[in-house]
Amino acid sequence: MFPSNSVGIVETKIYNLPEPFSLECGRLLEQAQIAYETYGVLNDDKSNAILVIHALSGDAHAAGYHSDQDRKPGWWDSMIGPGKAFDTDKFYVVCSNCLGGCMGTTGPGSLKPGTNAPYSLDFPPFSITDMVDLQKRLIDRLGIEKLVTVVGGSMGGMQALEWGIRYPQNICSTIIIASSAYLSSQALAFDAVGRNAILSDPNWNRGDYYGKTTPSSGLAIARMLGHITYLSLESMEKKFGREKNKDASPEDYFSTQYQVESYLDYQGRKFIARFDANSYLYITKAMDNYDAPARFGSLENAFKHSENVKFLVTSISSDWLFPPSQSLEMVKALRSANHDVTYFQIQSQYGHDAFLLETDTLTRLIKAFLKRISGKESDISTQEISLAALPSNVLIRSDYSVIYGMIKKGKKVLDLGCGDGRLLRLLMEHKGVRGYGIEINPDMVVKCVEVGIPVVQGDIDTSLSEYADKTFDYVVLNQTLQATDNPEKVLKEMLRIGKKGVIGFPNFGNWKIRLKMLFNGAMPISETLPDKWYETRNIHLFTMRDFRDICRKLGVRILDRRYIRDHHIFQNGLFPNLTSDLCIFVLEGF
Amino acid sequence: MFPSNSVGIVETKIYNLPEPFSLECGRLLEQAQIAYETYGVLNDDKSNAILVIHALSGDAHAAGYHSDQDRKPGWWDSMIGPGKAFDTDKFYVVCSNCLGGCMGTTGPGSLKPGTNAPYSLDFPPFSITDMVDLQKRLIDRLGIEKLVTVVGGSMGGMQALEWGIRYPQNICSTIIIASSAYLSSQALAFDAVGRNAILSDPNWNRGDYYGKTTPSSGLAIARMLGHITYLSLESMEKKFGREKNKDASPEDYFSTQYQVESYLDYQGRKFIARFDANSYLYITKAMDNYDAPARFGSLENAFKHSENVKFLVTSISSDWLFPPSQSLEMVKALRSANHDVTYFQIQSQYGHDAFLLETDTLTRLIKAFLKRISGKESDISTQEISLAALPSNVLIRSDYSVIYGMIKKGKKVLDLGCGDGRLLRLLMEHKGVRGYGIEINPDMVVKCVEVGIPVVQGDIDTSLSEYADKTFDYVVLNQTLQATDNPEKVLKEMLRIGKKGVIGFPNFGNWKIRLKMLFNGAMPISETLPDKWYETRNIHLFTMRDFRDICRKLGVRILDRRYIRDHHIFQNGLFPNLTSDLCIFVLEGF
Repeated sequence: MFPSNSVGIVETKIYNLPEPFSLECGRLLEQAQIAYETYGVLNDDKSNAILVIHALSGDAHAAGYHSDQDRKPGWWDSMIGPGKAFDTDKFYVVCSNCLGGCMGTTGPGSLKPGTNAPYSLDFPPFSITDMVDLQKRLIDRLGIEKLVTVVGGSMGGMQALEWGIRYPQNICSTIIIASSAYLSSQALAFDAVGRNAILSDPNWNRGDYYGKTTPSSGLAIARMLGHITYLSLESMEKKFGREKNKDASPEDYFSTQYQVESYLDYQGRKFIARFDANSYLYITKAMDNYDAPARFGSLENAFKHSENVKFLVTSISSDWLFPPSQSLEMVKALRSANHDVTYFQIQSQYGHDAFLLETDTLTRLIKAFLKRISGKESDISTQEISLAALPSNVLIRSDYSVIYGMIKKGKKVLDLGCGDGRLLRLLMEHKGVRGYGIEINPDMVVKCVEVGIPVVQGDIDTSLSEYADKTFDYVVLNQTLQATDNPEKVLKEMLRIGKKGVIGFPNFGNWKIRLKMLFNGAMPISETLPDKWYETRNIHLFTMRDFRDICRKLGVRILDRRYIRDHHIFQNGLFPNLTSDLCIFVLEGF
Repeated sequence: MFPSNSVGIVETKIYNLPEPFSLECGRLLEQAQIAYETYGVLNDDKSNAILVIHALSGDAHAAGYHSDQDRKPGWWDSMIGPGKAFDTDKFYVVCSNCLGGCMGTTGPGSLKPGTNAPYSLDFPPFSITDMVDLQKRLIDRLGIEKLVTVVGGSMGGMQALEWGIRYPQNICSTIIIASSAYLSSQALAFDAVGRNAILSDPNWNRGDYYGKTTPSSGLAIARMLGHITYLSLESMEKKFGREKNKDASPEDYFSTQYQVESYLDYQGRKFIARFDANSYLYITKAMDNYDAPARFGSLENAFKHSENVKFLVTSISSDWLFPPSQSLEMVKALRSANHDVTYFQIQSQYGHDAFLLETDTLTRLIKAFLKRISGKESDISTQEISLAALPSNVLIRSDYSVIYGMIKKGKKVLDLGCGDGRLLRLLMEHKGVRGYGIEINPDMVVKCVEVGIPVVQGDIDTSLSEYADKTFDYVVLNQTLQATDNPEKVLKEMLRIGKKGVIGFPNFGNWKIRLKMLFNGAMPISETLPDKWYETRNIHLFTMRDFRDICRKLGVRILDRRYIRDHHIFQNGLFPNLTSDLCIFVLEGF
């Protein structure tokens, strides 16, 4: 009847708060209730709970069906269920309707206690923080002391972030998808136009429309506009292009001549049947007013007590409502604060909506992340890491072995271009290093998450400026400098943000390369430089002598060095620029 | 009183068409009138006229002031006047209000002939083409047979494009700024939401509101929304950020708490005082329905008769309403059709509005373009070109001299990375070549425009796929292959779009380089490769032997060759891979 990986039939429950609920604005809600659903089974020590938080127009019904006849499952059914990203065979998943909503939780359309009328505009203004506080009451009520994770997209992501700021002791981790710590000016503007459409609707009647004609025209316009911002230019072009609406009559000339117009019209109509205009006004204002950096002076300050929370921040490449740059601001602040953060950018054409659509990518990423959060440390040392079983293991790449030896115990290490995270994992496991990675390849980023490395997806040519001076004890750059667009800048940046740098590079001055150049007159191909000239990523080749020259020019001191020749490691050696295949230096900057 | 480079006091004139005006939809306007202004003096042979076309909400008042008390000049005053981009000391500039407008030209608010009431929704639907036809009547009336140029931004750009399609014999050139041949699905969607706000306003009353309360709420919402799309994310962030509106009262909680909200509110109010809602409905529909490729089967077909028109297409980097990709579609079609097109992307953070703000860049570009259009050919051979005075001139770079010799008379040549256009100019001037350039550096693009080269701003790593197979007789790639990200792809592409390729490159196999490598053990620096390893743009170095190898691999035939050694040219030579500094090959592809 339902798919086998569905949670099946579920029901929305109501929790009535036993005492008044106090809001950030100073006012009280005498009687507050929360609508929520749960999926899966809470284990005995109540340690397997996950809180899922919905976006602006969502509700508590995140997964499953309300009846046998129900044709549409909950809004995030693709992610919640047996074997899914939020695996209900393992986890107990909770989702509640937000404060001020119109789907069961107390909001402007609820009866005002002591009267027979809805609150309407008497409802107190509330904040994202208030929404989180109300969720906390529910979690307390369920007897859960610590959540495995809280997760949300868009406005849900703001709340997931706020959990990390406000209740760090009550969560192991938080997953923030397509969201930000505050709305941009442009996003404020879109919300303002949507609200104006409602306020201008004569049926709005200063909020007093319950039991009368509702301001449906205004609410529909707000929703139509919202839908444009949830899609990308490309996805609209693919989905609708300039296709005409075949059913349009001449009467529809100004309104629904094109399919994209019919789509928006349909979305508007669908929305007014299920949503309350006053809830829309209040909730968009809660989003507009959320501003974590302003509240704490800076985003870094906001994270002052979040040191034990693991953050997963995910953005969408084509999202222009919550652009990736806003996710990166959170990542930057978390890294500055020395917190455990992983960042992943989903490559998608679907725009902001992709957080509901890119199920495969999100599932892979979140499963890896949750394995790390909920698993014991030993679970992580899988086959992937077997190379790292012993530091002296002969299977370890000789360059890894050298770098391993150069880094002292317990230090904080950033690996630039960390690949699958093996080197960092080795250092974390056997030397108690706090390791962080930057990696550009999304597949490698997921591998890092799987082996438990906090990794930020990024390009080292452009992303290092985000880090403060001397943030790390060591910055490692192994066999990557020659592949950067601007090697001088990268070298300067790594020695600015790290107290020491460890750099490994293929030596273009090796005698075999020189002789090949001399006698063949072709770009040499070797074990350390295996690609053809027109395919190589090694776009800035250099010799050991070149490297020493630039260090001298920049005032960089070389503290230690190793040379690798035919997989053997030498600390000294005659004519290293002639004989080394690879050089590894420990550097100190300015 | 007024600035010295102002056109001073001007007045809007009215031209009443002597006969009915027929529209694309088949209906007639019995009496049509056009509001227009003119600046400068029409010369005796009426050969110095320029038509300026306004955007959606503009009018005929493009420059100067209407009275001594007038504080605000016309909408494009920064560009029109003595010494300005459209120099009224040289040119006679005409600007008219568009068909269906509400600023003097006949529109839905005009009295319907034979009645005492405005047309309202009885006004026939009209098109961008109709707007252009009406302008043509005005130009005819002024006795102008051929315009130096027509120019417009946004909706004005659509009309400038349509002039190039519909009346190519009546214009020397057209300047299309921040526009496109059709609106994207996203732009259609924004227009639809704006119109919906008007249609939903009870005061709209199916268009019948003249003399009554106007649908000002709806029109204001449409305008607010429009303004968001005219700005960029960055410019809104800089201009407003999340600044609060200090004058806001608690009453304004839902509407104008933030400065960006006050700004939009102000723009809405300002607009309803001067614009007619029905005009807004009709004009946005004219934009929505404009679709040059659909009308002609393809954009290339649309340009079938435009071979003598010089096109200047300009986009704005941060424009997301008319994104640069849409400008590039026009450019691609014009190049496929072998027409004379120049493309320039303005680097600006101002979004779509930049076409009204980036005065300096536009002035420089347009002055150069108009110099080329209106000047005699001899005016162009300025000092810039003196190197090209004679093909055998000793001042000519030896590589230019070789390439000059390799290209046959009268052929069609594309120069990839054409720099300041010298080589193309030389070929055009002395060999009757039809020359086209691609250049990434904006300053060089302007120089090309100044010396009369049709040039497209673009990156050869990504922009060649836009050209059809065998579009050019020769594609030249001189000293650039080694600086591309993907040399193999660029090589394949140049031989796909060109019947022959002419390629020049520095030979990394030269004996001086080899010996430097051998003895110095440092990346060699030479006259042809003068940059340090960490600064060089030459990221894919190769030797002549490497190049011959890749030609063999790709099945490319080498038809002719020259070697340059110490500025001397050799056709043959012993060990060219050892001795040449530069190699120049004529290639033929697949």
